[in-house]
Amino acid sequence: MGEPSAAQPYHAEQMNLILLQSDEVDRPARVELADIRAAHLINVLRVAPGHEVRVGIVDGPRGLATVKSIAGGRVELACSFETAVPPPPRVDLLLALPRPKVMRRLWAQLAALGVGQIILTNAERVERNYFDTHVLTPECYRPLLIEGLQQARDTRLPRVSIHRQFKILVEDELDALFSTGRRLVADCVPGAPARTLSESAAEHVLLAVGPEGGWNDFERQLLAAHQFQPISLGSRALRSDTACIALVAVVTALTS
Amino acid sequence: MGEPSAAQPYHAEQMNLILLQSDEVDRPARVELADIRAAHLINVLRVAPGHEVRVGIVDGPRGLATVKSIAGGRVELACSFETAVPPPPRVDLLLALPRPKVMRRLWAQLAALGVGQIILTNAERVERNYFDTHVLTPECYRPLLIEGLQQARDTRLPRVSIHRQFKILVEDELDALFSTGRRLVADCVPGAPARTLSESAAEHVLLAVGPEGGWNDFERQLLAAHQFQPISLGSRALRSDTACIALVAVVTALTS
Repeated sequence: MGEPSAAQPYHAEQMNLILLQSDEVDRPARVELADIRAAHLINVLRVAPGHEVRVGIVDGPRGLATVKSIAGGRVELACSFETAVPPPPRVDLLLALPRPKVMRRLWAQLAALGVGQIILTNAERVERNYFDTHVLTPECYRPLLIEGLQQARDTRLPRVSIHRQFKILVEDELDALFSTGRRLVADCVPGAPARTLSESAAEHVLLAVGPEGGWNDFERQLLAAHQFQPISLGSRALRSDTACIALVAVVTALTS
Repeated sequence: MGEPSAAQPYHAEQMNLILLQSDEVDRPARVELADIRAAHLINVLRVAPGHEVRVGIVDGPRGLATVKSIAGGRVELACSFETAVPPPPRVDLLLALPRPKVMRRLWAQLAALGVGQIILTNAERVERNYFDTHVLTPECYRPLLIEGLQQARDTRLPRVSIHRQFKILVEDELDALFSTGRRLVADCVPGAPARTLSESAAEHVLLAVGPEGGWNDFERQLLAAHQFQPISLGSRALRSDTACIALVAVVTALTS
């Protein structure tokens, strides 16, 4: 839930923070925007010179910026950044690739929830042609991840990797992607209820979420053999976007 | 995550159970379908006479049905119902009405997550014209709720009520809608972290979720004066559909 402000209309994606690339910011911390961020400042936040807005640098610190000038759709900001960088998220997601339409909806929401890494994988019940979609190109997903971060006032851009071979991913690649921490696999088959997760603070968690049809037996066994412990939200069969959001939220809440 | 079945394509909304109205079922438990449910049985589940499918009666028991005949887009089923009815959900939601587009996306997901009651309310930061949308008509939301139940294999149809006056709702109407149980209000302002919720089993919970701009001070105070205790998922500002799903999932997981 965004910034309280009765006057402004609420959009699906609030820019509760304007994210900047480090190379956009000149010394001494000036930036000139002319894109969708400028349009948001002018048309939604209705800023005027002297107004302050929240800003952040991708993977860097948050800060405040003062609007210096507005002209011809361009907004010039003078930024002042905090010294500390927001802590990296502690929940990573290993997700059997959902349908492109569902994946498209998930990018911004996963970034907003604070997922550190999105590892997309094949599985038996994933259709092969799902991997050919433009939804998996950085040109598509990066702006959506940025949108989610701006909504949630975070700067930590989730890392994304895409793996077409589940067995090679789990056996050969996963230890490099996720070296230490707890591995959990969500499944509809009986597992520990989510609330029995230990509440050990600051533990890094990798959460595996299967396709809508579930993992097959081979996949379940391979995950179990690689230290994934089952957790369950109960026996309800959820759509994969609902399941993902619910599981990330529950694991985050229980391990924070 | 739906029914394991490698052969069938996965859609956004699986009919993991076919929901029937009690008045559709003749004695001895026969039903003939000719609508979207019949189309799903024929085209997606590709049933043939003798196949078994999961069925349920709205607010009644689940069961199994045997396909007796298929002809001209009609499917005849012979049903056998369990004696027990699924338990009613224990989480109710009091939600400041989000934008129609967001509300439309939420109906099926809230039913799938297992919300017993959806109480929609006005608030200062809800735009008045949101109440005029067809998304709030039973003709629109009932099929979406049914879709969510069929996805999650539940039969308990969420009750829906719509309240244009927040103060009257909280002061005069809420005790009748939610008489006993725990009242929680989610907010971005510091509250108890969600994981400190007591894990008392079988407690009925009413969860209040504000508009994207947050509750105003009057609304916060009125909720506090009516036994709503704050809980928080942290300081991230989430879109209201993401926030709703995350909060319902966390409260459900922690009180189950």
